[in-house]
Amino acid sequence: MLNANLSWIDNMHFECNNDGLVTAIDAPADHGGGRNGPTPKELILNAMMGCTAMDVVAILKKMRLEIGEFKMSIEAEKTADHPVHFKTATMIYRLKGELPAEKVIKAVDFSLTRYCGVNFMISKTCIISYKVYVNDIEIKSGKVEFAP
Amino acid sequence: MLNANLSWIDNMHFECNNDGLVTAIDAPADHGGGRNGPTPKELILNAMMGCTAMDVVAILKKMRLEIGEFKMSIEAEKTADHPVHFKTATMIYRLKGELPAEKVIKAVDFSLTRYCGVNFMISKTCIISYKVYVNDIEIKSGKVEFAP
Repeated sequence: MLNANLSWIDNMHFECNNDGLVTAIDAPADHGGGRNGPTPKELILNAMMGCTAMDVVAILKKMRLEIGEFKMSIEAEKTADHPVHFKTATMIYRLKGELPAEKVIKAVDFSLTRYCGVNFMISKTCIISYKVYVNDIEIKSGKVEFAP
Repeated sequence: MLNANLSWIDNMHFECNNDGLVTAIDAPADHGGGRNGPTPKELILNAMMGCTAMDVVAILKKMRLEIGEFKMSIEAEKTADHPVHFKTATMIYRLKGELPAEKVIKAVDFSLTRYCGVNFMISKTCIISYKVYVNDIEIKSGKVEFAP
């Protein structure tokens, strides 16, 4: 079981408590918020990147590979209608270091077909594409599809 | 379009950047992390609460009602198998103030049947139940079901 709590501070500003760790959620200034923290939808994007990033870093570490740099970006398109959710998203992995392409591809594939629970959940309502770059060279692109 | 970036710091510690707002993701200490931030799955719980909380606070404000206190908690059960995701979750709303029960029920219903995009996305793979308390009295319980 995983638990969390939330308390309203004021306006669109809330504080979340995860087992003692306190973080903020807020709306941006142009939506009447104070921008004290990310929006709920930004948290989803962060979770999508963070979940697969943890998988990939852990798998490459198990392969005894040294990662010089690991960055990701995500861009997501929202629906026009309510409930506003993500209909498409593109995640880009950018790694640097002495990393054989086939091993990086294997790590990303493991994450996006078997392990990454967050992308599994979001992929039910959103077409998630991805691209992988190692030392600025594109080594893989595809669509997130979990094994049935 | 909504964008976000992520950079690996070390181990399971990552920094997210949402349009200049920097927040951390990390694993807990008992999973080899430094607990510098919530885990990706904790972010999902925070987003589930934050998204519906923003709806409910905004709707009650539009109804010209004064909220004395607004708190939420969530408890979610993860699957045993990969990809590990939430299979059931229970959200509890706890409001205080001079708040007519029927208006609070209307606000929560609007959020959980029409507006809350985060709970819409997660409800595809997770049975989400909820309970609403006003001044410590339970006024509603149900299951999240979006209008088709």
